Amino acid sequence: MKAFVARSLDGVESLEIRDIAPPGSLGPGQIRIAVRAASVNYRDLMILSGAFSASTIDDLIPCSDGAGEVVETASDVWRVRTGDRVALTYNPFWIGGFFEIPAKPLGRGGGVHGVMREQVVVDQSEAVLLPSHLSYAEGATLPCAAVTAWHALCGPAPLLPGMTVMSQGGGGVSVFALQLAKLFGARVIIISSSPERCARLKSLGADETVDYRADAEWDAAVRNLTGGRGADLTLDIGGAQTFERSLRATRIGGRVALVGLLTGPPVAASSIFSSGTITPIKVGSRQDFESMNRAIEFHKLRPVIDSRYPFKRFPDALLHLKSGKHLGKIVVEFD
Amino acid sequence: MKAFVARSLDGVESLEIRDIAPPGSLGPGQIRIAVRAASVNYRDLMILSGAFSASTIDDLIPCSDGAGEVVETASDVWRVRTGDRVALTYNPFWIGGFFEIPAKPLGRGGGVHGVMREQVVVDQSEAVLLPSHLSYAEGATLPCAAVTAWHALCGPAPLLPGMTVMSQGGGGVSVFALQLAKLFGARVIIISSSPERCARLKSLGADETVDYRADAEWDAAVRNLTGGRGADLTLDIGGAQTFERSLRATRIGGRVALVGLLTGPPVAASSIFSSGTITPIKVGSRQDFESMNRAIEFHKLRPVIDSRYPFKRFPDALLHLKSGKHLGKIVVEFD
Amino acid sequence: MKAFVARSLDGVESLEIRDIAPPGSLGPGQIRIAVRAASVNYRDLMILSGAFSASTIDDLIPCSDGAGEVVETASDVWRVRTGDRVALTYNPFWIGGFFEIPAKPLGRGGGVHGVMREQVVVDQSEAVLLPSHLSYAEGATLPCAAVTAWHALCGPAPLLPGMTVMSQGGGGVSVFALQLAKLFGARVIIISSSPERCARLKSLGADETVDYRADAEWDAAVRNLTGGRGADLTLDIGGAQTFERSLRATRIGGRVALVGLLTGPPVAASSIFSSGTITPIKVGSRQDFESMNRAIEFHKLRPVIDSRYPFKRFPDALLHLKSGKHLGKIVVEFD
Amino acid sequence: MKAFVARSLDGVESLEIRDIAPPGSLGPGQIRIAVRAASVNYRDLMILSGAFSASTIDDLIPCSDGAGEVVETASDVWRVRTGDRVALTYNPFWIGGFFEIPAKPLGRGGGVHGVMREQVVVDQSEAVLLPSHLSYAEGATLPCAAVTAWHALCGPAPLLPGMTVMSQGGGGVSVFALQLAKLFGARVIIISSSPERCARLKSLGADETVDYRADAEWDAAVRNLTGGRGADLTLDIGGAQTFERSLRATRIGGRVALVGLLTGPPVAASSIFSSGTITPIKVGSRQDFESMNRAIEFHKLRPVIDSRYPFKRFPDALLHLKSGKHLGKIVVEFD
Repeated sequence: MKAFVARSLDGVESLEIRDIAPPGSLGPGQIRIAVRAASVNYRDLMILSGAFSASTIDDLIPCSDGAGEVVETASDVWRVRTGDRVALTYNPFWIGGFFEIPAKPLGRGGGVHGVMREQVVVDQSEAVLLPSHLSYAEGATLPCAAVTAWHALCGPAPLLPGMTVMSQGGGGVSVFALQLAKLFGARVIIISSSPERCARLKSLGADETVDYRADAEWDAAVRNLTGGRGADLTLDIGGAQTFERSLRATRIGGRVALVGLLTGPPVAASSIFSSGTITPIKVGSRQDFESMNRAIEFHKLRPVIDSRYPFKRFPDALLHLKSGKHLGKIVVEFD
Repeated sequence: MKAFVARSLDGVESLEIRDIAPPGSLGPGQIRIAVRAASVNYRDLMILSGAFSASTIDDLIPCSDGAGEVVETASDVWRVRTGDRVALTYNPFWIGGFFEIPAKPLGRGGGVHGVMREQVVVDQSEAVLLPSHLSYAEGATLPCAAVTAWHALCGPAPLLPGMTVMSQGGGGVSVFALQLAKLFGARVIIISSSPERCARLKSLGADETVDYRADAEWDAAVRNLTGGRGADLTLDIGGAQTFERSLRATRIGGRVALVGLLTGPPVAASSIFSSGTITPIKVGSRQDFESMNRAIEFHKLRPVIDSRYPFKRFPDALLHLKSGKHLGKIVVEFD
Repeated sequence: MKAFVARSLDGVESLEIRDIAPPGSLGPGQIRIAVRAASVNYRDLMILSGAFSASTIDDLIPCSDGAGEVVETASDVWRVRTGDRVALTYNPFWIGGFFEIPAKPLGRGGGVHGVMREQVVVDQSEAVLLPSHLSYAEGATLPCAAVTAWHALCGPAPLLPGMTVMSQGGGGVSVFALQLAKLFGARVIIISSSPERCARLKSLGADETVDYRADAEWDAAVRNLTGGRGADLTLDIGGAQTFERSLRATRIGGRVALVGLLTGPPVAASSIFSSGTITPIKVGSRQDFESMNRAIEFHKLRPVIDSRYPFKRFPDALLHLKSGKHLGKIVVEFD
Repeated sequence: MKAFVARSLDGVESLEIRDIAPPGSLGPGQIRIAVRAASVNYRDLMILSGAFSASTIDDLIPCSDGAGEVVETASDVWRVRTGDRVALTYNPFWIGGFFEIPAKPLGRGGGVHGVMREQVVVDQSEAVLLPSHLSYAEGATLPCAAVTAWHALCGPAPLLPGMTVMSQGGGGVSVFALQLAKLFGARVIIISSSPERCARLKSLGADETVDYRADAEWDAAVRNLTGGRGADLTLDIGGAQTFERSLRATRIGGRVALVGLLTGPPVAASSIFSSGTITPIKVGSRQDFESMNRAIEFHKLRPVIDSRYPFKRFPDALLHLKSGKHLGKIVVEFD
C-alpha cells in the first residue's frame, strides 16, 4: 500500500511516498481501517522539523488526524462494525479522566505511526464513530483541533450560556472554538490579523472581532467589550506573543486555556494574580471526542474546510498550513 | 402602604389587603425597593395551606418572587443604586457555594415576609439586577422558577451541547428549563398532558414531546427517542407520581434533578441502581441567579407569562395556579 | 491448568474444578498473569445464583477479584513488565472518566471469565501494580470492595478532613470505607449488628459505632452524634432495608453513596428532599484504583482479611461469605 | 477606645495609637466584637508601605486578622450569640462560591478598617465561630494564612490521600499548608533556607525537606523524591523567584496554587505546557473557613505561633515579620 514516510526530520522535504506492506492479520481487539482523509496540524510540521525528535520513531508515517472506513474487525471486537465510518483518536490510550503520560511516547504521527497510509490497524478503543452528516474529509478535521477546542471549552468547569469566550486567529482550533462556543450559548470575541479575516470570522458566528494589527492593545478592547469585566474564558493560542495579554483580557476567577505554542512557550505572566485559572490543554480524551460528536451531530455543525489536497500533494497541504494564510482546516483526501 | 396579609394558614381565603406602616429608616447596607410586580409559585399555595406552618411567621405577607425599583439606599451601599431595576433572591442568605440551613427559617414569603406589599427594605445582598430587556412583570418570574431550572441544568456538572434534557409539564420550572436548556445547546424532550399543551411546548422550542395521557409509559418513550440510552438529565417535577419513571428515563451516569414535590415526596426508587445521580434542587444561590441573568440578557430570552393579574386580584392568581391550567408563569402587577 | 467452572447458575454447588487448556499465545498489547490469590464478593454469589444470568457467559469461570504475577508480555507492551505484581481491574474497559455501559456485558467473572484459574491473559490496560508492601492475598482484596469504597469517598466532590462519614456493617466495602476514610482525615461512624462487631470496628479506627440491633433508630443516633447536622457522606449498603434511614442520617447538601444492594433495591425515598445528592457507585475506574493504591502505598494500609482458603476450597469461601459472619475480606490463595 | 491608625502609608513608622470613639449602636444584622488578638500578614506590611494605596482608606486601622468575643448582637441576628468566640473573615462579602470583585475595595485592613482596635462592629455574616480548643491568639492566626492554605489544598479538585504536596518556606501559609495537608493524608515536601528550619519543619510533620540554599535545583529534588513524576500540588509562595521551578516540580495534570507574591509577580513560565493547572488563590470564602474549622476542631490541630506581642508592640510584630526569621504565625494579644 502507499504511504508517506519521513526519511528524516528535516522538514516537509524529507517526505516521500513509499509502497509498503499493509498491516498483517488482526490481533485480539483490533480493527482495520481504510483511511479516506486526513487533516494537517501545526504539530505535524513541528514533528517533521525535528522539534520533538526524542519522542519520534524512525521512518515515521506522519499526521495524527485521519478518518476512514472500518473494513475488518477481530472476532472479539464490540465497539465498531465493518462499514462504520470512524475517526482515530489523537492520544491512543487516553479514554477518559485525567491525562497520564505513558511510559513511552504514543502520540499518533510521532511516537507511533500516523495516518498517511492506505490502511491502519488499531485497537478498537482508538476509533470514534463520525457524526452521520459529515464526510470523511470533514471527519478528518476533528481529532486534534476540534477536540482541543471542545476540551478547552469544557475544562474543569464548562462554559455556561451568556459567558464570553475570547479566541485568537483563524486556525483550526480557533475556528472550532468559535463554532462550538456558539453551541454552548456563549458570546464569542475573536482577534484576527486583517479586516477581511475578521469579516470572515463574523460570518462564521463571531459576535465581535478585533483586528490586532490595527489595535495592538486587544486585551483592552476585550475588557471594553465586556464592560470592564474581562472574558470568562480565553483560548491562548499565540503563546509567547499573546500570553500576557490573554491574562489581562480574562476576568478574575475566569480561565485561560493554553492551547497552542505557535510562537514558543509563554515567557511573561506578570498579570497572573489578577486573572483566572490557567489550564494547559493536551488535546482531549476519547470521551471528550464522543461528547463533542453528540453536539456536532445534534446541531449538524459543519467543520470549516479551508482547502483540500489529494493524497500525493500532502506536502503542499503542510506548506499551505505553514504559510498561515488558511482559515479553518486543511484536508488531504485519499484516492 | 397596602399589603396582603395572611390572617391564618387556611388557604387563599385567609388573605386580606391591609394598610400597614411602610418600613422605617434604612440601617447599614440596606436598600428600599418599590415593588412593581410579583409572580406566584406552588410553594406560596402550600405555605398558605399550612404545609410548612412550623417555619412560617405570624401575619405573613406572602409570596417569594418580586421585582421593583430601588428608591433609596443606605450610605454604605455599593451593590446597587437608586433607580436600579432589581429582583429579590429567594433565599436571602444564600450568596454562593453550597446551601446551608440557617438557624431559623428564612425563606421569603414563609420564614420572613414576602413581596406582596408596596415597599420592602432588604440588605443590598438580596437584590439582583434585572436583565435590561425585561419588564418588571417578566423580572418577577425569575427568583424561584427560573433559578431552580438554571440550577438544575448546571448542577454539579453543567449540561453540555448535544445532551438530552427531559422535563415534565408546562409549569414555571419546566418551561424555564425548556427555554434555558436550548441556550445550553441541549435537545429537550417534555412530557405534557394533552396534544394542545404538547404543541404549545413545541412552539416554545421543545425538540420532542410525549403526551403522557396517551402514552403512560413515557419513560420508554424517552428511551426510544434517545436510541435506548436515556436522557442525560431529567427534571423530576411530579415527585411520587413520576420519580420511578424519571429514574428509568435517565441514562446510567446521567442525572435526575428533583425540583418539585407536586404530588408528595418519592416513594419508590427501585430503578435507582441503573440510573444516574439524584440531586435535590433547593432553588439556587444569588450567584446562580446572576449567571442566569447574563444568559437571559445575552440571548434576550423572554419568560413565558401565562396571565397577569392586578395587585388586588392576587388571590385569583393563586387560584389559577392551583387549577394547573397555566403554561408558564402567572404574574401580579402592582398599580 | 486448573480452573473452577460453573456448570450452571444454580448456586455454589454448580462449581467444579476442571483441567482446561491454558490461554494460547499473546496478541498485541496482551500480558499473561499467573494468578496467586482471589477474593470473593457478594456479586460472585449472586452471579452463581443466576441473578444476572442474561449477562453471563456459559461455563463461566467465576470471581472478579484476583492478583498475580506477570509472567509474559507481548512485544509492544509498555505498562507492565515480567515479574510485576498486579491486580486485575473489575471493569476491564473503564480506564477513567465516566462509566459507559459497553455494548456487551464485560464484568469480570460474569460477562467475561473471572480469575479462578491458574493463568489469565488480558490486555495490559487491565492490570494495576500492587502497592509494594501488600501480599498477593492482600492485593486480591482490592479490585471490587476497596475501589468501590474509594470511589464512594471521592465521588463528584471528595471528602474533606473533618467531615463525617457513615458506613454500614463489617463487609468488605464498609471496612475499606472505614480504613480509607481515616486517610482522608474524616470522622467515621459505623453501624453494626452486635457489641462485639462494634468493638472490632472501633479497634480498626471507627470513631463511633451504633449497634443497630440495640438501637433501630440509628439514623437519629447519627444525627445526635453530629450535633443534629447529619453525616456529610453516607455509604448505603443495605439497600431496601437501610435507604430511607440513610437519607435521614445525611445532611442537606451531603451525599448518599449507594454501594450495595444486599437486600434489594431501595423502595422508599420519602426523605429525599431533605437529604443530599444520591450517587449510585459502580465500583470505579482504573484511575480510581491507581489513585487509591498511591494512598495505600503511602500510608502502608493493610486490608483486613477475615479468613483465607486454599484454591480447592473456593466454594467454602463463598459459603462463609454467604453466612454474613465475616468482618473484612475473604481470600482464596492459589497453591 | 484604643486603636492603631496609619497616619500615612510610609511604612510601620506611620503607625500610632489613638483614642477613638467606639462604634455606635448596632444596625440590623450587626454584632459587636471585643477584639482579643490579631495576627500579622505580609499583606499588612505591603499596605502600610503604600503598595495598594489606590484601594486603601484614609486613617486606616490596619490588620486583617482578628479574633474576639461577641459582646452585643442586634435583635435580628441569628448566626451568633453574645459570648461566642469568633474570628473575622478576610473578605467581608465572600460567603461561598466564586470570588467576585466588589465595586469598591473591601479587603479588611485595606479598603475597610482592620482589627487593631478594641471593638469592631460588623455584619453577622463576617463572623466565624472558633474551634473550641483554640485560644483567641490561636484563632487570630486563621483568617488569612490558614484559609489561604486550606483553599489551595481544596482548589477546584481537593487533594487526595497519597498525593504529594510541595510547599515553600516557614511562613504562615506554608506551615498551615503542611499541617493541613497531613490531615488530607498527603505526603508533604517543603523547601526551606537552612538545615535548622528544615529540621523544624520535619518536626512539624513534613515528610521531606529540601534546603534550597544547599540545593538550588530544588525542582529536580522534588522530581527525584516523587520518582520523576512531580508533585500533585505545589504552593508557589515565592512568585518571581520560584514560579518557573514550581512549574517544573509539578506533574502534568497536577496543580500549582499561586499563594503569594513575596518577590513580585511571576515573570517566566516557559515550563507551563508540561506542568499542571495554575490557580491564583485569593484567600478563601467563609464556607472555606468554616469547612477548615471543622477539620481543625476534629483533629485538635494547633496553629504554630512563632511569637506573641502585646497590643502596643504591634509595630514590632510587623518588623519581626519583615525580617523573615519567623516560622509560623506572629500574634498580637490585646490587653
